[in-house]
Amino acid sequence: MIIDATRGKPNAMQVALANELINMPLTSYVTEGIDVRNYGVGDGLPAMKRIFAELLGVDAYEVIVGGNSSLNLMFDCFATFVLAEQWGSGAKFICPVPGYDRHFSISEYFGVEMINVAMTENGPDMDIVEKLAADPDVVGMWCVPVFSNPQGYVYSDETIARLAKMKTAHPHFKIFWDDAYTIHHFSGSRPTPLNILSECRKNGNESRPVMFASFSKISVAGAGVSCFAASGDSLATLRKRMNAQTIGHDKVNQQKHINFFKDVKGVEAHMQKHAAILRPKFEYAIAYMEKHLKDTGATFTRPQGGYFISVETLPGCAKRVCQICKENGVLITDAGATFPYGKDPADSNLRFAPTFLSIDELEKTLEVFCAAIKTASET
Amino acid sequence: MIIDATRGKPNAMQVALANELINMPLTSYVTEGIDVRNYGVGDGLPAMKRIFAELLGVDAYEVIVGGNSSLNLMFDCFATFVLAEQWGSGAKFICPVPGYDRHFSISEYFGVEMINVAMTENGPDMDIVEKLAADPDVVGMWCVPVFSNPQGYVYSDETIARLAKMKTAHPHFKIFWDDAYTIHHFSGSRPTPLNILSECRKNGNESRPVMFASFSKISVAGAGVSCFAASGDSLATLRKRMNAQTIGHDKVNQQKHINFFKDVKGVEAHMQKHAAILRPKFEYAIAYMEKHLKDTGATFTRPQGGYFISVETLPGCAKRVCQICKENGVLITDAGATFPYGKDPADSNLRFAPTFLSIDELEKTLEVFCAAIKTASET
Repeated sequence: MIIDATRGKPNAMQVALANELINMPLTSYVTEGIDVRNYGVGDGLPAMKRIFAELLGVDAYEVIVGGNSSLNLMFDCFATFVLAEQWGSGAKFICPVPGYDRHFSISEYFGVEMINVAMTENGPDMDIVEKLAADPDVVGMWCVPVFSNPQGYVYSDETIARLAKMKTAHPHFKIFWDDAYTIHHFSGSRPTPLNILSECRKNGNESRPVMFASFSKISVAGAGVSCFAASGDSLATLRKRMNAQTIGHDKVNQQKHINFFKDVKGVEAHMQKHAAILRPKFEYAIAYMEKHLKDTGATFTRPQGGYFISVETLPGCAKRVCQICKENGVLITDAGATFPYGKDPADSNLRFAPTFLSIDELEKTLEVFCAAIKTASET
Repeated sequence: MIIDATRGKPNAMQVALANELINMPLTSYVTEGIDVRNYGVGDGLPAMKRIFAELLGVDAYEVIVGGNSSLNLMFDCFATFVLAEQWGSGAKFICPVPGYDRHFSISEYFGVEMINVAMTENGPDMDIVEKLAADPDVVGMWCVPVFSNPQGYVYSDETIARLAKMKTAHPHFKIFWDDAYTIHHFSGSRPTPLNILSECRKNGNESRPVMFASFSKISVAGAGVSCFAASGDSLATLRKRMNAQTIGHDKVNQQKHINFFKDVKGVEAHMQKHAAILRPKFEYAIAYMEKHLKDTGATFTRPQGGYFISVETLPGCAKRVCQICKENGVLITDAGATFPYGKDPADSNLRFAPTFLSIDELEKTLEVFCAAIKTASET
C-alpha cells in the first residue's frame, strides 16, 4: 500500500463539510434581477463579489469572480500581461523560495525567467527584492503572503509596506498576490497583515498588485469559486481580456455558495470546522518532528495555518530522503519542486503535506520520513 | 418597456428544464475511483468524456472537458496557438461571414487579421477558402458547421471533405470547429455531416481541427459543461497548456450532468423538450417574415435548428433597421455584429434572435422589425 503525501489536498472529512452546499436546492433562481441559470454577468454575482471584497479588503468593483480554480485565474492574468506588457523573452520574475511549484510552472510555460529570492520568517528578503526591482527586465513577482507555501510564514507589515512603495524600473511591475490561505489559520487568530492594494494605492502604485482568492480549501476543492481583485490599469487590462474570453462563469455555483455561507462570518465559522480537523494533524506532525529530527541537523517550520510544513535537511540530502521514502511506500512532494525549474541549489528543502492523510497514514508517513532524514543525514 | 432581442439566449422555460439537475443531490461522491469533490483529473470525469466523445464522434482520449463555457475554451485554445505557433502580427484567419461575433472578438483580441469569406447554404465558399489557404500567413479558420450562426446552414459533406484535404501553405493550419448546435435541431432529424476529425485524419491532417461542444444550450446556459476535442500535435500542445493552467474543472457539475442525462440518448430526449419550445417561435417568425417581408427586397433563412434567423435587407439598410427598431423599443443584434470588426461591407445583414422572447414579445418584435425593414427599404 503506497501512501501519497505529495499534494496539499484537503482530506475526505474536509470535503464532506460542504456536502450540504453541493446538495442544496436553489429556492430561487433570480437574484438582484439576475437569472443565475442564464448567460451573462461576466464578473460575478454581486453578493459573491461582496463576500470576496470583504475577505480581501477591497471594493466590490475591484473583484472579478472566476470559475472553480484561482490557479486558472493566475494563469490567465499572467497570460494577459505576457501579451499586453510584452513579457517576452528577457522578462524576469521574482520568486521567493522555497515556493509554490504551480506558480513556477506558469512562469516557465510563458518563458519568463525566474529569479530565486530567499524567504525569511517575515516574507521574502526585501533588500534583495528591492535590488532586483531596479532592473527594468524584472516585470513582477509571486507572493503567498499568508501561510506561505510551503513554510506557513506570514509577511510582516514592513515587508508589505516595502513591496508597496519600492521603486521598480519596470513601470508596470506586477505583484501576483496569491491569498490562498487568508483565513486558513488552524491555531491562534486570523493574521491581519497590511492590505497590499491599499498600501500600493497610498504610494501611487494601485495597478501593481493582482490579488487572488479561492473557496477551493473552504468549500469544495474541485468545485469552489475563485476570484481576483485589481485596480487601475491592471483591472482595465484584465477586464478587456475577460470580455473576449467568456460570457461569465458558473453563477449557479456562486449562488449556492452565497446561500450556504451567507457572508464572511459564515465563512469564518465554517473554517473552524476545517481547523478542528487540521490542527491535530499539524500538532502531531510537529511534535513527532521535534522528537525525531532532533539530532539530524534538519529544521522545520511550525505553521499556525496553511497546508504545509517546510523541512530543511542538511545540504545535499533532500533527493535522497525522497528516494528512501519511496522505497518504503511513502510518496512525498519531489525534492526540488519548491524551486523554479525543480532545482533546489542546496538540495535541502522538502515540503511536508499532512492534510490529505488519515491519522494512521500520517503516523506511518512521519515514521518513514523522519527515519529517511536520519539515514540521509548520516550517510 | 424595451424588448431585448440582441442575444441568442435560451428563455426562462428552457433553462427551467434543467432545474432538476441543479437541485439534484449527489448520492455518491466517488466515481470510477475519483472523489468528484477533490482536486485533480484535469481532463474531466471518464463518463463525461465518453458522452462528449459520442456526441462529437471522436475517441474519449481526444476529449478534454472544460468549465461552463466553450467560448472560454476557444479563447484559451486560440491563445495557446498564438504562443506555440507564433500567430503574431501578420497572421490571418479565415472568417465565414456572416458569422459569430464572439469568434471575431477572440481573433481581434490577439491581433490576428480576419478575412471574410462568403457563406453559402453548403458552408463557406470553398473555392475562396482553398485559395486563401495557399497563403502561408493564413493560419486557421472559424467554422460553425451545424446550424451556422446566424444562418442555420449545415456544412455539406463536400465542404467538409474539402476542408479536410485542402493543401495549406501554413503547415499547422487550424480549423476551430465550433459544434455549438450539433444536436440543436427543432425540426426534422439531427444532421449527420461528415466527421471533420476522421476526414482530416484520412488525409494525414489529424492536427488540423479543434472541435468544441457545450451543454450551455442543453442543460444550463450559465452552468453547463464544455469540452474540446483534438488529436495529434494539437492535442499535445493544448494539453501542455492545460497542465500549467488548472488542476481541473468542476467535477461536481460534471457528475450532476452524468447523473441527469445518463448518456447521449438522455441528451437527445432532453433536446426534444427544447425543440418543442423553440419550434413554434421559429415557425411563427418565419411565417410572419414570409408575409411581411414579401415586397421589401429582404431575404431570410429558414433554419431547422440553432438559435438564429439571418436576414438580408437591401444593401445599405441594416443600420437604419436597427435604429428604427430601437426608436420603437426593440433592441436587435447590432448591424455589423455578424462581421469581423463589426463592419458589414453591404450593410445588409441582420441576425434575428427569437429564442429568448416570450410569444408576446416575439409578436411585437416581428411587427417592429418587419415594419422597420419596409421603411428602410423604401427610403
